[in-house]
Amino acid sequence: MTRPLSVGLAGLGTVGGGVLRLLRENAEIVTARAGRPVAVTAVSARDRGRDRGCSLAGLRWFEEAPALAADPAVDVVVELIGGAEGTARALVEAALAAGKPVVTANKALLAVHGAELAARAEAAGVVLAFEAAVAGGIPVIKALREGLAANRIARVSGILNGTCNYILTTMRERGREFAEVLAEAQRLGYAEADPATDIDGIDAAHKLAILAALAFGRPVDIAAVHVEGIRSISALDIGFASELGYRIKLLGIARREDGGIETRVHPAMVPLDAPLARVEGVMNAVVAEGDFVGRVMLEGRGAGAGPTASAVAADLIDIARKRATPVWGAGSGALSNLPAQPIGAHRGCYYLRLMVVDRPGVIADVTAVLRDHGISLESMLQRGRAPGEAVPVVLITHETAESALRGAIERIGALDAVLERPVLIRIEPG
Amino acid sequence: MTRPLSVGLAGLGTVGGGVLRLLRENAEIVTARAGRPVAVTAVSARDRGRDRGCSLAGLRWFEEAPALAADPAVDVVVELIGGAEGTARALVEAALAAGKPVVTANKALLAVHGAELAARAEAAGVVLAFEAAVAGGIPVIKALREGLAANRIARVSGILNGTCNYILTTMRERGREFAEVLAEAQRLGYAEADPATDIDGIDAAHKLAILAALAFGRPVDIAAVHVEGIRSISALDIGFASELGYRIKLLGIARREDGGIETRVHPAMVPLDAPLARVEGVMNAVVAEGDFVGRVMLEGRGAGAGPTASAVAADLIDIARKRATPVWGAGSGALSNLPAQPIGAHRGCYYLRLMVVDRPGVIADVTAVLRDHGISLESMLQRGRAPGEAVPVVLITHETAESALRGAIERIGALDAVLERPVLIRIEPG
Repeated sequence: MTRPLSVGLAGLGTVGGGVLRLLRENAEIVTARAGRPVAVTAVSARDRGRDRGCSLAGLRWFEEAPALAADPAVDVVVELIGGAEGTARALVEAALAAGKPVVTANKALLAVHGAELAARAEAAGVVLAFEAAVAGGIPVIKALREGLAANRIARVSGILNGTCNYILTTMRERGREFAEVLAEAQRLGYAEADPATDIDGIDAAHKLAILAALAFGRPVDIAAVHVEGIRSISALDIGFASELGYRIKLLGIARREDGGIETRVHPAMVPLDAPLARVEGVMNAVVAEGDFVGRVMLEGRGAGAGPTASAVAADLIDIARKRATPVWGAGSGALSNLPAQPIGAHRGCYYLRLMVVDRPGVIADVTAVLRDHGISLESMLQRGRAPGEAVPVVLITHETAESALRGAIERIGALDAVLERPVLIRIEPG
Repeated sequence: MTRPLSVGLAGLGTVGGGVLRLLRENAEIVTARAGRPVAVTAVSARDRGRDRGCSLAGLRWFEEAPALAADPAVDVVVELIGGAEGTARALVEAALAAGKPVVTANKALLAVHGAELAARAEAAGVVLAFEAAVAGGIPVIKALREGLAANRIARVSGILNGTCNYILTTMRERGREFAEVLAEAQRLGYAEADPATDIDGIDAAHKLAILAALAFGRPVDIAAVHVEGIRSISALDIGFASELGYRIKLLGIARREDGGIETRVHPAMVPLDAPLARVEGVMNAVVAEGDFVGRVMLEGRGAGAGPTASAVAADLIDIARKRATPVWGAGSGALSNLPAQPIGAHRGCYYLRLMVVDRPGVIADVTAVLRDHGISLESMLQRGRAPGEAVPVVLITHETAESALRGAIERIGALDAVLERPVLIRIEPG
């Protein structure tokens, strides 16, 4: 038996506690899989006195997380502090500078500073592992970077934020509005007190940026991701979606186009028979489409102490076994330089929902604008009659350019008979 | 750039051709991911003259596959011949003896001789890789053996044979009988001319035995797998399943029980809201349940040249990157010795369908037998009336011991009013 792999763990919140617990409860399994014991020997966290439900006896305590990297008895640093800046970043940089492998669950740090950190890891010849940063315990990093590595990936899409998926699922199941369901999710602990990172799509964008980098073998580029959240999704549109055979999901999508790589996070209408349409509640899922493998889907719990600890421990086992993979799947000399394609160049089908005055000629005006912009319709849905009052009208377009649609919407929104800002939701195959 | 990884490829059927094609078409991607070029330089197959749609120019040709292992210019041997004995086995043994890593898609070889081959690979210190042996291009070996490696796995279940899933899906969609749909599947090339390996559950059993070994960290044990195929599934039972909220699927299930590991392949009733119920046609899927990660599902195409080549190439990339994992996830000294639990010790819920004479007292007789064996019923379904003639009766049991149920069925089958051998289908959570 080789000597134990000694882990320095920074951050003892829910996830940090989960990692401690896993490495203790499943010590026998981890030792067998890793070929040697893997044990936390040093920790750092904000409040030493707090009761974490697990003993810290026998562990070296560091007030300052970056000091973990300097501890000669620490072989690997696990960063579970979170945040793109500050202590988390300082710790990861210190560990790489000290030539120590790093395991992190920090999607924000990787999305924002991943390109630079990957370069540092490569220069230092050490592993920077982050299975826990995307989709919790689902081994999606490993699947994309190793399992499907021989494929030319055409598209990766995913439900990457459990909070948003829970809110959208609950809105549909109960026919309720966003604000009510968000408040309930906050009470249940499924949404943060400050929910912006989740519901505005920022968390999903961090994860998508990482997936896109892995799928297309290029450095992470968070600035290129087009992001829209779910605040503007209404019970009315969710109802229409069901009626038309769709589910509304917050998707992250990275797609190889002629002009480069398109990366976007936004609510999307997904056909009911697509696998992603059936991923409900707090579950996460990722679909990858490779030229040889076809479509592969991975589904599971995307957050929480258990799944995240599972992913962190898998990275530690890889490190113990000396299984190393370059951060973006290929060394810096072999990374792709495909450009990012802006959302304006997107082509797709759209759901367009208007509130219009129910009077003759309104539809003719609207469809004339669409015709002028070269946009053809697949179907139209108008329900209820209320002469002289507001009624919803739904239009589904054939494939069209986003730029054309945006031009048309501006003109449609300016029509007298159109009472609210038109709602536009992209239609995606899943 | 390091020198290319030189591959000796045995077997140039559909899958072998796919591997050749992938390594050529995606050479740039594979080189980037592997850190060096990966190229087939030597081949062996039965008929040198056959047109395979891809050039063999410049490749060394060996009449006898095992000679590939002796070629000093071959770094890695890829075995795509198939079959548990004969040339395939001889080649793999020769390669391991020569200290060369092996990549194989051969589930039969691994299921039958895997324990011995793993010991040889460990003794020789070389990799024996087999991602392509289970579920085609879905990286399920990697997920179980590395991605979820830190979990105590409670259960693995899967749809592991696309031919059976296609047949069952088509029977349901078209309301047709097994024999007709099998004949059509054979015409379409979804089923072999000799379909026994698929429809009798043997192929699925091979794959399940491998998954069980990985999930529970123990040597493969094909002899312990209880196997039933799908020949006895009728349109009548598929119809009842739908009516009761189930789909009938051929599942492979490995479950940790108090008494050891239960491994079984048989048709099962899966609730409609379970993810496996919605895996249709030729698709494969695997669900793993870990104590920390929860339930993770992987879904994709389980066979065919493309997906299989994707998996073989992923193994080659791992080998090029020197990423090694013991065959069953742990070294021989750390493997589990959990015993196998026989099917008689299984506990679960059951669907029981009888054809009985429609006359008073029959149900009373049947339920009295069940009561005598301590079996309680969740529900009963009797449709149609035909006094004095045969009608189907469906009984759904609460959880009960298989041994008790088998005793009851023997007595029920012997009742005068019971006209055919009772049909028994286990109910599974998916």
